[in-house]
Amino acid sequence: MNHSDKIKLGIVGYGNLGKGAESAIRQNADMELIAVFTRRSPESIQSKAPVYSMADLGKFVGQIDVMLLCGGSAKDLPEQTLQLNSLFNTVDSFDNHGKIPEYFASVDQNAKAHGKLSLISTGWDPGLFSLIRLMGENVLPSGKTYTFWGKGLSQGHSDAIRRVKGVKHGVQYTLPNEAAMYEVRSGAMPELSTADKHRRVCYVVAEEGAEKATIEMEIKTMPNYFLPYHTEVHFINEEDFFKNHTGMPHGGLVLRSGVADSGASQQLEFSLKLESNPDFTSSVLVVYARAVARISKEGRKGAITVLDVPPGYLSPKSAEELRKELL
Amino acid sequence: MNHSDKIKLGIVGYGNLGKGAESAIRQNADMELIAVFTRRSPESIQSKAPVYSMADLGKFVGQIDVMLLCGGSAKDLPEQTLQLNSLFNTVDSFDNHGKIPEYFASVDQNAKAHGKLSLISTGWDPGLFSLIRLMGENVLPSGKTYTFWGKGLSQGHSDAIRRVKGVKHGVQYTLPNEAAMYEVRSGAMPELSTADKHRRVCYVVAEEGAEKATIEMEIKTMPNYFLPYHTEVHFINEEDFFKNHTGMPHGGLVLRSGVADSGASQQLEFSLKLESNPDFTSSVLVVYARAVARISKEGRKGAITVLDVPPGYLSPKSAEELRKELL
Repeated sequence: MNHSDKIKLGIVGYGNLGKGAESAIRQNADMELIAVFTRRSPESIQSKAPVYSMADLGKFVGQIDVMLLCGGSAKDLPEQTLQLNSLFNTVDSFDNHGKIPEYFASVDQNAKAHGKLSLISTGWDPGLFSLIRLMGENVLPSGKTYTFWGKGLSQGHSDAIRRVKGVKHGVQYTLPNEAAMYEVRSGAMPELSTADKHRRVCYVVAEEGAEKATIEMEIKTMPNYFLPYHTEVHFINEEDFFKNHTGMPHGGLVLRSGVADSGASQQLEFSLKLESNPDFTSSVLVVYARAVARISKEGRKGAITVLDVPPGYLSPKSAEELRKELL
Repeated sequence: MNHSDKIKLGIVGYGNLGKGAESAIRQNADMELIAVFTRRSPESIQSKAPVYSMADLGKFVGQIDVMLLCGGSAKDLPEQTLQLNSLFNTVDSFDNHGKIPEYFASVDQNAKAHGKLSLISTGWDPGLFSLIRLMGENVLPSGKTYTFWGKGLSQGHSDAIRRVKGVKHGVQYTLPNEAAMYEVRSGAMPELSTADKHRRVCYVVAEEGAEKATIEMEIKTMPNYFLPYHTEVHFINEEDFFKNHTGMPHGGLVLRSGVADSGASQQLEFSLKLESNPDFTSSVLVVYARAVARISKEGRKGAITVLDVPPGYLSPKSAEELRKELL
């Protein structure tokens, strides 16, 4: 593959996801990273690719096949996507589930107006988990779908712990409730709330002289974040914290429990166990950028999601190779 | 949904798969079964749908959107598909892995010549497992993919047991080797042969007066079928056999073990646990028939596989509903 055949990518935003995207691109020989764009000072960014200010984006029109939008869903994406997909095809991991229909509509309209293609809301949930939920509810139409998250670091809950008085450092892991998982796998199809399916485990380094019992109670009774969940609080020292609790692991599973018309119990399960959540999410983003580059070449415009992408488009291999190797 | 909007299906072949397809169609309100076709005498078939001889197929041209080919891969499909896809769109579960490229080519040519669409080789392996292998090797490009089968009844191996002298009844289950599975899940990425990954467990009812030790040795040393596998032979009585060993359970899993560019270990796993293997395979066939009906309406002709189908086409729901519910 010579230089000019490669898929040319840009990264907008250089937090955990943007950094992950840069490494993910290195694992794919059919792609190259043209530039990273940041709102910060470009000199402050440690990337192996050329780094530019967001103000320079316009200079790259025609030089980048797909832009990977690596900003956050709360504030960055709703603003940035509509500016960026006037100029480039885009891929993003917008994960504010309730707002996806509205986000899709505005991204779709703008992409069509400017002749671009934007794939929204990919990653693992929404993303791969959405595909499995779709597969499950169709191949086992009589049944129930369950999603469990964890073991994984929850950024929002860790932030909440750190706001408690007397907490110096803190992290929160979401874990699936093993008993609930066992019951679901038995085919019993129980009704389970999110709180029934998960428990929350916190590791806290207390400030010197802080009252641990007070911290623990304050965490456990924090509404929405920790109530009504089963919550454990463990106090550890600073050394332990920096040694064992600075990674960003995550994972989870989707389980479809169904019954065939004959009465046979049928179970389908998909799970992820990730030492690095942002590395995985960005890797999925990069793979969908490959599909966007191809589908856009076929002339499609507007917004699409993982539900619209023929699976073969995710691979650099030819259809013949895929049939031979994977079927 | 009124009658005429429904997807009209036919079933060719009424063995376990054809029967499973008939029940699967009952679980999907947007479909109707128009007729079952058989090489046997139509009167001998116990179906709730009208049953016809294969000779009557021609009378149904224009009345069936997609024909579900439920014959075997060894002899039925290579013959039947090329006759049938001159007249109808088709879906099949051709699973002779090594011959898929050749089968695809001839089905593709014939479908194009007659303006039909044929989706080949769906089910769970090939089929859903192929999709997961594709997803795995792309989102975790640096890694290894493992497929384990079982616990499940192997028809071919059960037949082989029953040919052993002195065997009255016999079944063989393929089981994943738990130790190998554990090692794979650890992220160690071992090299494993099919024999390393599986063990074979046989339940045998011996003829009266037969020498059990001889039967056991003959089974365990049968080349290809049982050598070099770890094989267990259990002798049981007829009552136990008919009570506990006449179902058709199966299952298996695909595991992708990968390493991100950062060094993080990442694991993706998909598994099935099925009380009825033919019910599940036929359910997948029926879901892909829905996609074939739609893609054919868009004017596509020739052969396709699961790798070509946009996931949203598997569902009777609209794209809006799917985005809202699944993303």
